[in-house]
Amino acid sequence: MSTAHFRGHSARRGLAGAGTPAGTDQPQAPERAARENSREALLDAASALMRELDTTEIGIVDIAARAGVNHAMIRYFFGSKEGLLMALLDRDVTRRIRQLGRLFHLDVTPTERMRIHLSGILDTYFAIPYLNRLIQQMVREADPARVRHIGEELLQPIANAQARIIEAGVASGEFRPVDPKLFYFNTIGAADGLYANRFTLSAVFGGLPNADPLLHARYRAHTVETLMKGLLADPA
Amino acid sequence: MSTAHFRGHSARRGLAGAGTPAGTDQPQAPERAARENSREALLDAASALMRELDTTEIGIVDIAARAGVNHAMIRYFFGSKEGLLMALLDRDVTRRIRQLGRLFHLDVTPTERMRIHLSGILDTYFAIPYLNRLIQQMVREADPARVRHIGEELLQPIANAQARIIEAGVASGEFRPVDPKLFYFNTIGAADGLYANRFTLSAVFGGLPNADPLLHARYRAHTVETLMKGLLADPA
Repeated sequence: MSTAHFRGHSARRGLAGAGTPAGTDQPQAPERAARENSREALLDAASALMRELDTTEIGIVDIAARAGVNHAMIRYFFGSKEGLLMALLDRDVTRRIRQLGRLFHLDVTPTERMRIHLSGILDTYFAIPYLNRLIQQMVREADPARVRHIGEELLQPIANAQARIIEAGVASGEFRPVDPKLFYFNTIGAADGLYANRFTLSAVFGGLPNADPLLHARYRAHTVETLMKGLLADPA
Repeated sequence: MSTAHFRGHSARRGLAGAGTPAGTDQPQAPERAARENSREALLDAASALMRELDTTEIGIVDIAARAGVNHAMIRYFFGSKEGLLMALLDRDVTRRIRQLGRLFHLDVTPTERMRIHLSGILDTYFAIPYLNRLIQQMVREADPARVRHIGEELLQPIANAQARIIEAGVASGEFRPVDPKLFYFNTIGAADGLYANRFTLSAVFGGLPNADPLLHARYRAHTVETLMKGLLADPA
């Protein structure tokens, strides 16, 4: 999508006037709530479809049908499917960045802080198994302004927070000195390993992908333990 | 692709007669070599396109153009694009399964065998960064017979070999007892972490994806170290 398309969309929103969040004539509260519901319903529908179909290749007609909303509303709220996926990514990741911010207010050791952080990453991929693939797709295909936004405002805060924990742990002698960039890719890879490959899990090891309700808890405990052992300094 | 399509393809190959590897009239050697070259050229072209474009969504016209072969040859050799991707996956993975077989002939400790195995996995994802995503896509979308083939003949041999190393290491007291299934997904995830996300690497940390020629060697050393520390038993 080009920036011209962005501008066109803004102009349309301006022309649409009343009823848009950016409009000068504010809609009445119930109308505003209904519109907000439609917007959220579209985001929820896209998220559910990507999770269930195990792919980021979903169509706007299917998203709208799942949300019970006319598919023209995707254009109205988001400009395009790419805009909708960007809004979803923003919503999903921003929530995690806020959680990370709270993590730094806890009075715990770097070891304990990293354990909580890694558990949170595992929970994120369990809840949003398409997350990594959606980021990969957007970074590859989206408008350059969006790619910059994803890099600088969604992913760098997470990578920087993790690097900050590593630096504190190395300084305290708890962690061995590792390159935070390399550890970051170990983390997202290992954390995503099961969830990005849940159909493979079924093909290789048998059983339905979500048949074992304890699998996530076991994978989380196992992966946090493996990564923490990989990070901790050898006992003196 | 349906099995009917498979049968149709086989029938066509039978009708085509001379020149097909399965034909009763064997072609002359130069003709056979040329055909084998076209087949390999198509596989090489598909591999190169997926690597360069960082996606498994490639078209048969582009594959054929890259190979310098008429795109009807894809149907002739492989029946369909799915058949071509399956042949490529077979070629890529079978080579690694043979390497794994040789690994068991080395007279080394489980620790050393696992190190060599993990290094090999890292090298594989560096050389074939689309591998995991191609497997995910085929397992999701391909004909059930192909999904079974991928599970039983391509992935289970690798997972079983890794499990065999783990069992030997646990028995010798070198490794802590881990669930081989969970460790397998840690391994493929962590190993693939950088390569599946190489465009993300650029967006988050700056620089072109392949600008650092030493990055792979550093990522391999770092990841093998992290996973081995995660696996090794605590010193008594």
